[in-house]
Amino acid sequence: MIDFQKSFIEELTKEINQDNKAAVKELIKDLYPADIAELFTLLSLDETLYVYRVLEGEDAADALMELDEDERAKILDRLSSEEIATTFIDNMDTDDAVDLMRELDEDQKEDILSHIADVEQAGEIIDLLKYDEDTAGGFMSTEMIVINENWSMPKCVEEMRAQAEELNEIYYIYVVDDQERLRGVLPIKKVITNPSVAKVKHVMKKDPISVRDNEPIEEAINVIEKYDLVAVPVVDEIDRLLGIITVDDVVDKMRDIHERDYQLASGITQDIETTDNIVRQTAARLPWLLIGMAGGIGNSVILGGYEHIFASNPTLPLFIPLIGGTGGNVGIQSSAIIVQGLANNTIKEGSLWSLVTKEIAVSLINASIISLVVFVYNYFYLKDMIVMASVSISLFSVVMFASIFGTFVPLMLERLKLDPARATGPFITISNDLIGMFIYMLVTSMLTSYFLP
Amino acid sequence: MIDFQKSFIEELTKEINQDNKAAVKELIKDLYPADIAELFTLLSLDETLYVYRVLEGEDAADALMELDEDERAKILDRLSSEEIATTFIDNMDTDDAVDLMRELDEDQKEDILSHIADVEQAGEIIDLLKYDEDTAGGFMSTEMIVINENWSMPKCVEEMRAQAEELNEIYYIYVVDDQERLRGVLPIKKVITNPSVAKVKHVMKKDPISVRDNEPIEEAINVIEKYDLVAVPVVDEIDRLLGIITVDDVVDKMRDIHERDYQLASGITQDIETTDNIVRQTAARLPWLLIGMAGGIGNSVILGGYEHIFASNPTLPLFIPLIGGTGGNVGIQSSAIIVQGLANNTIKEGSLWSLVTKEIAVSLINASIISLVVFVYNYFYLKDMIVMASVSISLFSVVMFASIFGTFVPLMLERLKLDPARATGPFITISNDLIGMFIYMLVTSMLTSYFLP
Repeated sequence: MIDFQKSFIEELTKEINQDNKAAVKELIKDLYPADIAELFTLLSLDETLYVYRVLEGEDAADALMELDEDERAKILDRLSSEEIATTFIDNMDTDDAVDLMRELDEDQKEDILSHIADVEQAGEIIDLLKYDEDTAGGFMSTEMIVINENWSMPKCVEEMRAQAEELNEIYYIYVVDDQERLRGVLPIKKVITNPSVAKVKHVMKKDPISVRDNEPIEEAINVIEKYDLVAVPVVDEIDRLLGIITVDDVVDKMRDIHERDYQLASGITQDIETTDNIVRQTAARLPWLLIGMAGGIGNSVILGGYEHIFASNPTLPLFIPLIGGTGGNVGIQSSAIIVQGLANNTIKEGSLWSLVTKEIAVSLINASIISLVVFVYNYFYLKDMIVMASVSISLFSVVMFASIFGTFVPLMLERLKLDPARATGPFITISNDLIGMFIYMLVTSMLTSYFLP
Repeated sequence: MIDFQKSFIEELTKEINQDNKAAVKELIKDLYPADIAELFTLLSLDETLYVYRVLEGEDAADALMELDEDERAKILDRLSSEEIATTFIDNMDTDDAVDLMRELDEDQKEDILSHIADVEQAGEIIDLLKYDEDTAGGFMSTEMIVINENWSMPKCVEEMRAQAEELNEIYYIYVVDDQERLRGVLPIKKVITNPSVAKVKHVMKKDPISVRDNEPIEEAINVIEKYDLVAVPVVDEIDRLLGIITVDDVVDKMRDIHERDYQLASGITQDIETTDNIVRQTAARLPWLLIGMAGGIGNSVILGGYEHIFASNPTLPLFIPLIGGTGGNVGIQSSAIIVQGLANNTIKEGSLWSLVTKEIAVSLINASIISLVVFVYNYFYLKDMIVMASVSISLFSVVMFASIFGTFVPLMLERLKLDPARATGPFITISNDLIGMFIYMLVTSMLTSYFLP
């Protein structure tokens, strides 16, 4: 967060309340849109609206898109469709416009579309809205510089200048043939350092990296990350250039995915922030707590079947947390390694058996060490031979089982085209807890019936 | 991963084994460095080395830096310091050169530095190596276009062309005064669309966003993310321009941080991959398993103090997993929300009390629902009134305690300048498990001694 001086905020609110547009404009003229967005938390809604109305077109649109969805909704709620179209949408890149439209209901969408001044832009927004939100097509913008491969370099520079007027930033210049098919890319550097009269097609880099419009957004992220790009072009099935995905949007999306994965692993089912209200926080947290509770009750049923053993051997319950906890810890580790390997593409098709044998080897070492240490500890502090043996045998089995289970569950989900990130966290912990108790009770009752028949 | 055709790999290895440099060069000429890096997993070390030696300077350097640190070490191990200097370092941007040098030991570093052809570059590498690896200074590169504010735009364009020859990409042009202090920035777009004779200082954007060299790298990431930049300049205490941090490196660093956070939350203490060997995987996983084991043994000690109660009331142990598990689940959720809020800067100084009161409100709802549901369940299935009451009272207390504990631990770590990401995962689970058992036993023994004196 930028540190706004208290005196700055006081002066700003004073000028707003005196309806002094020029003074407000002067106060905020050096602020970046992302900083203006932060004013939202320091001003009232009315004051914020005043600031957004004072802003020049593009800055207002950018500042609006820097807000959280909830904050943005509060502002849009207070504006007419016409105002939203002319103040914001008209000044936005198509990808931002599409993001904004997705947050509105159908009626409002249509109403706003009818108020967009630039019919071509409205048409592009309608086309983009047809894409699924999580595909490259649903994420791209149509603002880019496109030139024909048969043009000369001087004509290309001239055209670039003309097109650049309407863009915020230029990263690459895309080269197409007469059928709009992507044929090459010109990095800005080449244009600056190669002012020749050659045709574009002899200067451009051929066969540029691109992604298909219907590919998942993760593919575009991986491509930008792998090839260190600032933008990647999006094409259709016959290679026609449709738009670009820029790295700034990829950075934001990476943060979102990161936060979602982290929350899923922590048993939080919706994207929440510390600033969200109590109802929303509870709704995101209660589901896994209830599933965990059901797991705990399930455990009480499993243990209930062996209640008679507890009466005769009250030392047995002391190791319930040890066995359940160790199973949970091992399972989380195993599944996290697989989830991450799937996410960063290091797990290859056909490497399944080498993965599983390695996991078994690692687990054999861990299981041996843990059960041995616990055995030595119990040897000195416990009198009951059966509990001593049962705890170590159970621990060993639980570690082995939990690691194999933790390895297979995310792999299976991936194969079923479900999100493996959902496999870690509470689900693995709860399953391993249940199975751990089952193993412990089974081993103990077998030992008991064998040695104390 | 790119899908290399089997026939391609066969042809490549055939040409390598026949020492046919020209044919190898032809085969790999259209591959990007990131793709060439992937050949490492498909070729033998000798074959890979052959490919790297055939590559032209910059491509060899880029492909080397796309490798994992372990793979890179294997290649460097086989080369002389002179070869490393001339084949790789001479063709690298300074930030990559510094990354590479950091992976080597002191003797080798000095030896390589003495073989670098460009003395200025060697000097820059030495300067950059003085920075801590996790600061903006330790992460920046010195390759950028710098012009003087008093130059005219035409001179600026000319100079830009000259400097651009040596750079891979150009994003912004930085403007300094006669004392090398950063005064402004010229986006490429302005240079292309504003070919006037005005002085640079009248065209540039003044007061550009920058980061200090000794700030943590996270600050540079946040700035690039917040302001949607492609690169951010790094300055010293008197604003002299030292270098830039580019978004492609930020994207890689974000992925690293993401993976580290996820692994820490899953109880994995070192950065590991599915491809790492068994020893390394065990070393990363065993520490938390042993700490968890110690926690489990601690729990057996706590429960051991109440062993006599288990003998007289064998229903009591059935709910140990429920109470321990719920405490763990609640604690993980609470701490994850705080860790994430700290990471994305949404938790502000002074908002501590509102955070804690909100957390208490959410927990009151969750605690009430869970303990009520369990009470109703037990009412139908249990005969023992004391266990019934004890389980619900304990659950309620454990949820309240775990959520407050989960909130405070990361906040406290942040205040102590320790990494709050370390607070989630196993530490929180294990602590809450211990405290959960303590609460359960305390409540039960109080109820028992009151109602069954």
